[in-house]
Amino acid sequence: MSKIFDTLQPYLDKAMALETARNLFEWDEQTLAPFEAANYTSKVVGILSDEYMKCLINDDVRKLIKKLKEDKEQEELTDKEKAIIKELDKTYEQLESIPPEEYRAFNELTIVANRAWTKAKKDNDYDYFAPYLKKIIEYKKKFAGYRAKKGKELYEVLLGDFEECFGIKELDIFFDKIKSEIVPLLKQVSQKSDTIDKSYNFLKYDLDKQREFNRYLCGYLGFDFNRGVIAESAHPFTLNLHNHDVRITNKFMENNLESAMFSVIHETGHALYEMNIDDSLTQTPVGSGASMGMHESQSRLFENIIGRSEAFWTPIYTKLVETYPENLKNISLEHFIKGINKAQPSLIRTEADELSYSLHIIIRYEIEKAIFSGEADVDKLPQLWNQKYQEYIGLTPANDAEGILQDIHWSYGEFGYFPSYAIGSAISSQLYAKIKELMPVDDYLKEGNITPIREFLRDSVHKFGATKNTNQILKDVTGEEFNADYYVDYLKEKYENLYSL
Amino acid sequence: MSKIFDTLQPYLDKAMALETARNLFEWDEQTLAPFEAANYTSKVVGILSDEYMKCLINDDVRKLIKKLKEDKEQEELTDKEKAIIKELDKTYEQLESIPPEEYRAFNELTIVANRAWTKAKKDNDYDYFAPYLKKIIEYKKKFAGYRAKKGKELYEVLLGDFEECFGIKELDIFFDKIKSEIVPLLKQVSQKSDTIDKSYNFLKYDLDKQREFNRYLCGYLGFDFNRGVIAESAHPFTLNLHNHDVRITNKFMENNLESAMFSVIHETGHALYEMNIDDSLTQTPVGSGASMGMHESQSRLFENIIGRSEAFWTPIYTKLVETYPENLKNISLEHFIKGINKAQPSLIRTEADELSYSLHIIIRYEIEKAIFSGEADVDKLPQLWNQKYQEYIGLTPANDAEGILQDIHWSYGEFGYFPSYAIGSAISSQLYAKIKELMPVDDYLKEGNITPIREFLRDSVHKFGATKNTNQILKDVTGEEFNADYYVDYLKEKYENLYSL
Repeated sequence: MSKIFDTLQPYLDKAMALETARNLFEWDEQTLAPFEAANYTSKVVGILSDEYMKCLINDDVRKLIKKLKEDKEQEELTDKEKAIIKELDKTYEQLESIPPEEYRAFNELTIVANRAWTKAKKDNDYDYFAPYLKKIIEYKKKFAGYRAKKGKELYEVLLGDFEECFGIKELDIFFDKIKSEIVPLLKQVSQKSDTIDKSYNFLKYDLDKQREFNRYLCGYLGFDFNRGVIAESAHPFTLNLHNHDVRITNKFMENNLESAMFSVIHETGHALYEMNIDDSLTQTPVGSGASMGMHESQSRLFENIIGRSEAFWTPIYTKLVETYPENLKNISLEHFIKGINKAQPSLIRTEADELSYSLHIIIRYEIEKAIFSGEADVDKLPQLWNQKYQEYIGLTPANDAEGILQDIHWSYGEFGYFPSYAIGSAISSQLYAKIKELMPVDDYLKEGNITPIREFLRDSVHKFGATKNTNQILKDVTGEEFNADYYVDYLKEKYENLYSL
Repeated sequence: MSKIFDTLQPYLDKAMALETARNLFEWDEQTLAPFEAANYTSKVVGILSDEYMKCLINDDVRKLIKKLKEDKEQEELTDKEKAIIKELDKTYEQLESIPPEEYRAFNELTIVANRAWTKAKKDNDYDYFAPYLKKIIEYKKKFAGYRAKKGKELYEVLLGDFEECFGIKELDIFFDKIKSEIVPLLKQVSQKSDTIDKSYNFLKYDLDKQREFNRYLCGYLGFDFNRGVIAESAHPFTLNLHNHDVRITNKFMENNLESAMFSVIHETGHALYEMNIDDSLTQTPVGSGASMGMHESQSRLFENIIGRSEAFWTPIYTKLVETYPENLKNISLEHFIKGINKAQPSLIRTEADELSYSLHIIIRYEIEKAIFSGEADVDKLPQLWNQKYQEYIGLTPANDAEGILQDIHWSYGEFGYFPSYAIGSAISSQLYAKIKELMPVDDYLKEGNITPIREFLRDSVHKFGATKNTNQILKDVTGEEFNADYYVDYLKEKYENLYSL
């Protein structure tokens, strides 16, 4: 037991309380708060955020962390405490390196830039957004510069903020493999995908019935309604106050059956991760998922690998048909499985199918890399974007609104974030290969028995929270660090089968 | 402009933010939070509460308030600032008088006592609750003793915490008037009330239709859905984050039409008050209603005086009948008005009709007074309770669960709170008499025009928040301070008419 760590505890508790409050305001804003509340509530959230910063970033905490990083003190710490110190140290490094006035100016800029992006996207006017984007990039370069080790790329720093195990080198290897294997596969598939008639998916599906079926699906996967709730919002998301209060949202569309269904499976994947974090870790700085990529691996494992498999739907497809007999009575399970896996190159990342998804990510990764190495001219990004879409996906956007302006991320200064999505997909394949090795997973799914899969994930991934990083988790579970081969193999096998290539 | 007040502002802002966060957690707990969240979330709320206390109760703030109370500084203050200092001073007096360890022990006791009350009520076992109640009363006596002026009753202190304009003297006068006029009236009415057939109210009323009609009713009264939301909870309540985010809840029962309808009218009365607080006052210590009694006057004005009048229902009764034609097609407006005003002595305060309601309050007031003067023996409270019910209401509870154990308030140490309900009813009559003098209110209601009433209340009561006290508001609006004659006259006229006495 470290007495110095005990001295740190009250700061951690206060920061946790303030952050939980901010999270609840975020939830409330997205799901319920009345339209005109924002201006007044933002004052409240602003004060809570300032208090959070003051509580964590101050001389007392700085000294305690410095002390706790010393070898002698490290010996006294439990693994959990060590992980907390490592996490705090990372936060300090990120926040302390930036002069407060620059940080504030940047935050104000992102608010304006986000508004400009919204307008530019609506008006299909990249030139309107470009000056804001340039300023944001300048700040991000400056901020990354404060922390970049000598001779290191600035983009490396940004990537590290989201996923410590993946730098430019690792991502280049990963994405080169995807490009060489998946781009040709997608071309083959595109020529055949029109053979699947998916018109049934766009008939009218009663919203209340959708709500009911999706709630069932969520519980079927193991979401614990005593420790979580479902609400509705403009974009589905998962948010947790702690491991006993995990919330997901969904969005229902009357003319699209799949949309809400795969959203709820995806968010339930995130939610199971948070619900399964160990009680001893929740409400600490290491009480959430290990990384963005690891989190995304759980949502995508459920959404794509499990949720789009025939075995998964075998025991419950009848229930779906009975919910909408008029629309589905003539759609066989086999037809439905083809429908939910239909691959078709498209221009919008968030609507992309499983096969082409990572190509959308690669395009963003390559452009971000070029921005931060100075190779790309911000004014000419639309051309670069369109050229890459043609090359990898085989399509060229008709305009910038469905091209370079489609994602919100850059308007908030989020560079280095996109790769996590693809990393998540790849990790899910690597984990699933292990699961298949350990248990007759298709049999379980056909019996409607999700428990063994969920318990395996809980015991090998979830419960550790952020006390292990991505590669440590993968090494401990699968015997090797991140390996994209599983992902490539999975996609090839699945789509070659589906389209009889 | 006072520079010292400016120094105080950051403390006020931080306290406001922490309190708003606590309010949001309270809202969330009552309306949405999953069952098992409580233990973890209470840690968060506990920390936020501690921070709130630390932020307001400290040497810096104490010195600033002391300074700002000096004559020279008072001259520099705006009326709003003066009201804030007065409010803070009151809070200081309440909180500082109690030694922190006693305050903590008392708060812990209330949690246990509340659990004991729940069990005692369920088991109909007053003796189980009595020891807890005794301890709570001991603490409350001690706490009141710290602040009681020489020769003053302890109960006087407790009453003052809820309503500074009403002490024992004022309440004795008020309640004596009620007793002498209303007790005999209730006896007359009881003999006649069985002539009204209200069975239609207890038929089956579809819940979704109730939700829709009640939402309509809420908007009809002027609730602004851009600045507020409706949700559902076990007990209806109103809660505001600020004047642009005011929330109400409702509770729907399938076999009772009136229940949710008059709840929503009641809560909308509270909500309109909070929505109409001036923008310059919201998010300050004087940014809510003037007092419990004043707040209750607004909810009861809408619920009882307006909401149970024939004029109010004239333009909208058809809509109600069309919502439930099978249940209401043979119920005339006249019959419906008699039904919603049917008076019948009963044992449960929260289910009491308008006529007998204040008698339930008087019983509690007299018992509380006897407790704090030392005249009442806690072990013998059930007998005292039953005797008073027989005397004023004409009924004796069959057991303590429907007698002395019915209210939650005492288990939390809330003594002195009940009178506010009756004060609210009386104020609503006094205000309404003025409204009738100023405008053809029945004509307006029959035209479906609530706006003039709402605007009058906004401009004469709501917008001032807590910058005026109850009597100042009444004096400015009606030309006189609190006067219960209006209430007695209103009840007599209404019920003599209704029952042709």
